[in-house]
Amino acid sequence: ADAPKLKIENTRGYGAEVVLYDRFTQDRVAIGKKIAGDRGLTLVPPFDDERIIAGQGTAGLEIAQDAKAMGLTFDAVLVPCSGGGLTAGIATALAELSPKTQVYGVEPANFDDTARSLAAGKRVANTGTTPSLCDALMTEMPGELTFPIIQRLVKALSVTDDEALAAMQHAFFNLKLIAEPGGAAAFAALLSGKVDVRGKTVAVVLSGGNVDAEVFKRALAQ
Amino acid sequence: ADAPKLKIENTRGYGAEVVLYDRFTQDRVAIGKKIAGDRGLTLVPPFDDERIIAGQGTAGLEIAQDAKAMGLTFDAVLVPCSGGGLTAGIATALAELSPKTQVYGVEPANFDDTARSLAAGKRVANTGTTPSLCDALMTEMPGELTFPIIQRLVKALSVTDDEALAAMQHAFFNLKLIAEPGGAAAFAALLSGKVDVRGKTVAVVLSGGNVDAEVFKRALAQ
Repeated sequence: ADAPKLKIENTRGYGAEVVLYDRFTQDRVAIGKKIAGDRGLTLVPPFDDERIIAGQGTAGLEIAQDAKAMGLTFDAVLVPCSGGGLTAGIATALAELSPKTQVYGVEPANFDDTARSLAAGKRVANTGTTPSLCDALMTEMPGELTFPIIQRLVKALSVTDDEALAAMQHAFFNLKLIAEPGGAAAFAALLSGKVDVRGKTVAVVLSGGNVDAEVFKRALAQ
Repeated sequence: ADAPKLKIENTRGYGAEVVLYDRFTQDRVAIGKKIAGDRGLTLVPPFDDERIIAGQGTAGLEIAQDAKAMGLTFDAVLVPCSGGGLTAGIATALAELSPKTQVYGVEPANFDDTARSLAAGKRVANTGTTPSLCDALMTEMPGELTFPIIQRLVKALSVTDDEALAAMQHAFFNLKLIAEPGGAAAFAALLSGKVDVRGKTVAVVLSGGNVDAEVFKRALAQ
């Protein structure tokens, strides 16, 4: 129910039926399973599935191919992180193809379940109910399949909404790319100095441009 | 002097010395020639040079390659048009590689020197002094080298500033692309029905994303 209107409208525009829910009082996994069961449909989970992790991991393959084509090795790769499918997939690909590369998963500051799970040594859920502008990164907790991979291969960072907005502005003016707040999270971590990149070669994943005009105007006004 | 601040700042950021002039009272060609002469520099003209036309024409080669890869033939290609370097280059490439494709050059409604030159059968200059939001398309008249090519191969269309802004918004929401007003002119011609594309296969060139935040906000607010 708090997804960007643009995302909802575009999804409907592609012919989908969109079922809204309240992320703070309802369970989207249960809702999805019920719909799939009632109608005899196949559930495609957002991250906690080996095929989804492998599919999103092709971004890691591309990063490794690009590095090879440019004749360099990335010291670090920064990835927006929510349930961890994209992060775990990229980390799995790079562990094989570029083992010296450190992968960082970047979360919203108030949805840092991955960081807190890594600190606790087990999966823990987000406690707060303060929404983030990074709507795409507001998952409850790391996945059962993604977390062990992340535990083994990934470090966590977090960014504020303002840092995400500033990164969106920078991407607009300097890269001519449109990123939504969550899609700009890893870029925000880089720009706000959350990891020391001096003298290092770093790749950043920008993922997703489903951003409403009002939020984008806020980014431009920063 | 009326270039987007972003374009000026980014150009300076790349290490260039930027010399501003008033397009309605000064002659940029004369200014450029004088600077080049005084300092012993090579002048790189914006469009009226065979090498510039050929270089910009590589966009036409790419369009032909893409068409071949997709197994289709474009009925029309729409190109933002100012001095005509990009338009003449693309038309030259497609005349060879895709002779059934009609190329359209798209101008701002109040800087339609190409359309009026085609109607007159000779190069005529713009008379008005009303600036267009499409700052990149505000050339005085078609080039000596570009016009004969355009006369032979190209048809002209024009769009208003509002149509360009609406196309920028559409590109933002649906294509996730950033276009400046002039860069969106050809897309604007398509969206506002300036050419009948029903049942046809059409390519559109979006060129340039040097747009200030204020103008982009206007596009988003359309």
